[in-house]
Amino acid sequence: MAEDWPMEYSIHRDVLDEGAVDEMAEKSNRKTSVCDKMKKSLRCSGPRLKRCLLGSVPVVSWLPRYSIREDALGDLISGISVGIMQLPQGMAYALLASVPAVFGLYSSFYPVLVYFIFGTSRHISLGTYAVLSVMIGGVTERLAPDSAFTIWDNVTNTEVVDIVSRDAERVKVAAAVTFMSGIFQLLLGLVQFGFVVTYLSEPLVRGYTTGAAIHVIVSQLKYTFGVSPKRYSGPMSVIYTVLEMCYLVPQTNVGSLVVSIVSIVGLIAAKELNTYLSKRLPVPIPVELLGIIIATVVSWQVNLKDKYGVDVVGDIPSGLQPPVFPATSLFGQVIGDAFALAVVGYGIAISLGRIFALKYGYKVDSNQELIALGLSNSIGGIFQCFAISCSMSRSMVQESTGGRTQVAGALSAVVILFITLWIGTLFEDLPKAVLAAIIYVNLHGMIKQFMDIPALWRTNTIDMVVWLATFILTIVLNPDLGLAASIAFSLLTVIFRTQLPTYSLLGQVPNTDVYRPLEDYNQVQRHVPGVVIFRSSATLYFANAEMYQEALARKSGIDITKTLAAKKKLEAKRKRHEKKMAKKAKKDAKKNPVNTVRKNNVTVIDVELERDPSLPRTIILDLSPVNFLDTVGVKTLRNIRRDYGEIGIEVILCGCQTSVVQNLQTGGFFGDKLTKSCLFTSIHDAVLYCRPESNTFTG
Amino acid sequence: MAEDWPMEYSIHRDVLDEGAVDEMAEKSNRKTSVCDKMKKSLRCSGPRLKRCLLGSVPVVSWLPRYSIREDALGDLISGISVGIMQLPQGMAYALLASVPAVFGLYSSFYPVLVYFIFGTSRHISLGTYAVLSVMIGGVTERLAPDSAFTIWDNVTNTEVVDIVSRDAERVKVAAAVTFMSGIFQLLLGLVQFGFVVTYLSEPLVRGYTTGAAIHVIVSQLKYTFGVSPKRYSGPMSVIYTVLEMCYLVPQTNVGSLVVSIVSIVGLIAAKELNTYLSKRLPVPIPVELLGIIIATVVSWQVNLKDKYGVDVVGDIPSGLQPPVFPATSLFGQVIGDAFALAVVGYGIAISLGRIFALKYGYKVDSNQELIALGLSNSIGGIFQCFAISCSMSRSMVQESTGGRTQVAGALSAVVILFITLWIGTLFEDLPKAVLAAIIYVNLHGMIKQFMDIPALWRTNTIDMVVWLATFILTIVLNPDLGLAASIAFSLLTVIFRTQLPTYSLLGQVPNTDVYRPLEDYNQVQRHVPGVVIFRSSATLYFANAEMYQEALARKSGIDITKTLAAKKKLEAKRKRHEKKMAKKAKKDAKKNPVNTVRKNNVTVIDVELERDPSLPRTIILDLSPVNFLDTVGVKTLRNIRRDYGEIGIEVILCGCQTSVVQNLQTGGFFGDKLTKSCLFTSIHDAVLYCRPESNTFTG
Repeated sequence: MAEDWPMEYSIHRDVLDEGAVDEMAEKSNRKTSVCDKMKKSLRCSGPRLKRCLLGSVPVVSWLPRYSIREDALGDLISGISVGIMQLPQGMAYALLASVPAVFGLYSSFYPVLVYFIFGTSRHISLGTYAVLSVMIGGVTERLAPDSAFTIWDNVTNTEVVDIVSRDAERVKVAAAVTFMSGIFQLLLGLVQFGFVVTYLSEPLVRGYTTGAAIHVIVSQLKYTFGVSPKRYSGPMSVIYTVLEMCYLVPQTNVGSLVVSIVSIVGLIAAKELNTYLSKRLPVPIPVELLGIIIATVVSWQVNLKDKYGVDVVGDIPSGLQPPVFPATSLFGQVIGDAFALAVVGYGIAISLGRIFALKYGYKVDSNQELIALGLSNSIGGIFQCFAISCSMSRSMVQESTGGRTQVAGALSAVVILFITLWIGTLFEDLPKAVLAAIIYVNLHGMIKQFMDIPALWRTNTIDMVVWLATFILTIVLNPDLGLAASIAFSLLTVIFRTQLPTYSLLGQVPNTDVYRPLEDYNQVQRHVPGVVIFRSSATLYFANAEMYQEALARKSGIDITKTLAAKKKLEAKRKRHEKKMAKKAKKDAKKNPVNTVRKNNVTVIDVELERDPSLPRTIILDLSPVNFLDTVGVKTLRNIRRDYGEIGIEVILCGCQTSVVQNLQTGGFFGDKLTKSCLFTSIHDAVLYCRPESNTFTG
Repeated sequence: MAEDWPMEYSIHRDVLDEGAVDEMAEKSNRKTSVCDKMKKSLRCSGPRLKRCLLGSVPVVSWLPRYSIREDALGDLISGISVGIMQLPQGMAYALLASVPAVFGLYSSFYPVLVYFIFGTSRHISLGTYAVLSVMIGGVTERLAPDSAFTIWDNVTNTEVVDIVSRDAERVKVAAAVTFMSGIFQLLLGLVQFGFVVTYLSEPLVRGYTTGAAIHVIVSQLKYTFGVSPKRYSGPMSVIYTVLEMCYLVPQTNVGSLVVSIVSIVGLIAAKELNTYLSKRLPVPIPVELLGIIIATVVSWQVNLKDKYGVDVVGDIPSGLQPPVFPATSLFGQVIGDAFALAVVGYGIAISLGRIFALKYGYKVDSNQELIALGLSNSIGGIFQCFAISCSMSRSMVQESTGGRTQVAGALSAVVILFITLWIGTLFEDLPKAVLAAIIYVNLHGMIKQFMDIPALWRTNTIDMVVWLATFILTIVLNPDLGLAASIAFSLLTVIFRTQLPTYSLLGQVPNTDVYRPLEDYNQVQRHVPGVVIFRSSATLYFANAEMYQEALARKSGIDITKTLAAKKKLEAKRKRHEKKMAKKAKKDAKKNPVNTVRKNNVTVIDVELERDPSLPRTIILDLSPVNFLDTVGVKTLRNIRRDYGEIGIEVILCGCQTSVVQNLQTGGFFGDKLTKSCLFTSIHDAVLYCRPESNTFTG
């Protein structure tokens, strides 16, 4: 490579320790006090207030600048396309949330309008989302199970479920949990906690959504096969449900199964066609809309419900419903689920929003997004919607059909309003199996994420473990608890990573000032005799301080306890010997006063000479990978210096960051005897310091 | 400083990128596969087996080498001293554990003998320990509360507590939880999980023991004041108990209070005397023993119990009891407490053991200690002991009176056996208030730990927060749950630390190859125009990847989204312009075929020139503090390179550790266009690479 770049590295300077650098570069001591920082962050001024207000209602700043000539047409086409998608998806995801289909339409309307006012992302399509819907389904079925609404049917003399009051209760539960999740998002946004989303790393989100997709699929199997399994809740419920389904397969309703298979095949074929024609069509074919129209017409004409017992959507009231404040009595029971919904919903929306923002070069404000979603959900909750986020598939359509601003979203809401008011009732004969098919087909993206496993296996094993653990935890513990457990696990991996560092001895790359691990390179030399250079690849803190000491002893081959014990024994021996000698000397002195001094001297020298010559003279600890030192870390370094010092090995440090030097200082590492002169700027400085016999050396 | 060391740093070499270093130093590719590692660790050989067996029963290896001449006298004196201390402490801590006093004596006997055989620390004094005892007290009072043992007293016609059966049940509970904790320790030891103790950082342990001391004190107040408050359990129980005590103060039994005050004052005075005389006495005065002897005699003579209603120890059966396997039915209810006991007990023992090991130059095997403690506790549980660990105060006495090996511990057990068999019954009249006083006085070390707060405030604020949080969590959530919460909290601080890094731009210390943060030094220069050097003080991973990007944009002053958007606009403009030009050109071509080429060229150049000249040419990211990169980290670096690349800024990396280069490689950072030549060994190499106009430069 040297031929490619005819550049040379040539430096000639004094060997620098930390103190020398501080002096040369004039280290400044100015420090911002906590008080000043607080003052600064709380300072209130006119422009700041204005900016803050404008920031919290973004529509005020962008709508006046809306260019009808440039943006309106794209937004119109895009809004209508997305609105048409919202209809079948809304109805299908309402099924997931275990509420009547019409509430899916409401959820595609109110929150979308609110987001239009407060949102900052121009391309994401807010509305119903599979993962959130299945989480809500878990809550509604837990708090309003079938078993709580059985009544005695006098006609058939059997117990039947009072579906009307059950569904009313479920809508209440869904509205309450949605409202709560909105409030959580709002609060998190107001205290600027948008950063919580950073804990949702990409492998975690992908593993999580794949796990949630399995939940979604399992929950829809009953519609596909037309059976009524028992409801399970709590951990492992997915597994119990799958077992139950296997048991119920013989009772399959053939009509439902046929409808399912036909619609799945049809949808997939149409979607493939869409992809194939995507370049030639200005707007994609509304596959799902066509699907439900055809299915409704067929179902109505053939009378699938009565002839074949196929479960259909049923009563869809037209018109909107008045706002109702959610039942406060339910808040206590849904607080955990609401928090999970808030975090997941936000996580999905912000990650998608960022992708588009980067693509089109604008900025998505994470805290404002949190506030916008919070308002969407809490206002939605009052209008009996269930929790929303943004869907990948709809957002892609919104973008690809030319949507350029939030106006597209607002227009899609208008489309939904139109449908809800006048057309919705026409879909009463739609088989639920078709909606289940729409859900399956929409999940293909999440299922494809299984391909992450081999990809991560090749790139980063720990991230693969996070993916798998999240997936399994989500399946086993359900999406709410599973999310908490997965985040905890992914944070633990960070700890584990710092607990499994690579410890290495470094050597010099010949003729340079570059030092590399001895085990990784063949041509690296220990070079300076009597000097050991040691580095840990991780920060030194309480969870790995002990390992650091052990690794140092192992790598350098110095058994500090043994050497110290030997030294102690030697000292005891010397003392005994000296005592004896002193006695003898006294005796001798009486006899022969001249010979005493010499003999004592000889003894002392004897003991001093017993220092093991194979021991190194100096150990250099390279601390460049250290991010911070806690008290345990500082103490460990001090102990190492002291212990090795006792057996005659000097320990010096090098490559500390400014903040680490600060940690050492406040942690009391330096004292009267120990100044910053044991800290060197680079390994090479430290090595040069250890070879005083040859002052300069040119590589 | 330069005058002090007449050494000079002089180097002359090629500028090195990662590829060049790999070539020069011959990077080796040998990797140990997971399979090989497994094979190696499972390999079984004769000497290995022998070493393993000898290691698990250490007494076999050290007892034959026991030197009677050197060690026996010290061990004898020390053993008797410690045994004498075990008596009052054992009885007092039995009070804490809410079991009859004699079980405290058993706990000072059986486990100590077991540890003699399996333990590796020569100086720690195993036996009852305040923190563990109060934890056990929590369990026994929860599972065998007074309320469960009320019977109707026909004599007084009131409900009274059947103390005999209550205590029997409590002993059962204590034995069960002790046995379980021993089994946990044994299992952890067998799977070599001794490292779990590394999560117990020093601030955490000290905050925890101080919090536990508050629990101990509160639980003993009832004996001091001679009242019977209600028992509380669960979170906040300490606070409720204190409130209850305040309410009950008017009902104080004056006799108990006087006895308490006298004994506390007496004990403190005697201990002070002991400290004062410590240099002149070969063996410390057995203060506590004298205390309980005097108190017993006084109580017996004055008849404190009947005359003043002072609560006394009561029936002490002489002799030992046959072993009983603990009640398996209780195991399920105590599993959480047992785990907490196992971890805390081990944590205390190993940290004390290490201190002595370091002082006397021998080695304490953390896994073997875990096994030894596990056997002590599980065998102890069968003999109805309660959980033990080692006490600081006893260990100090054991060491200072000349104890040199585990034989001292065994001798102390013999002393306790002697007392249990013949003398124990004499202490039946001992007031419980005296035992409470002994407990208080023994806690002074833990209470002194409050002084950690100001010390840590000065040295390390985050560690102070950990201390305080642990203290508060332990008090509020009780020692068992509090420990788990504290460990979780202290691990979170590690995450927070990596989330609050210092981001800085670096500049050159004049005439050197040393680069330091611009804001920390006055004489540091940006030096090379058009080059920005950026460093984060922390590892780059999912939880701070976004902040890294933001900080880079903020510090470098480059608004990447704005610049990109401007560039996009410009490109669109250019395209439109080109189209226009092309049209015009066509038209022109028809008119005047010569002029076309020039005009088109002018347009292109116009657009190219619009690159903002204030933008730097190169950004150097110093990755030396990075410990590892996960997929998010690699992706972030790739995105930064791509995004800045699009606006014409080259991003190069430097200072990567070998493992980080590995992460970049497997993470797919490098591609066809991007080789290791964008990775430099040091900042200075990268800077030199950026200034091709002047090839060499000497500081």
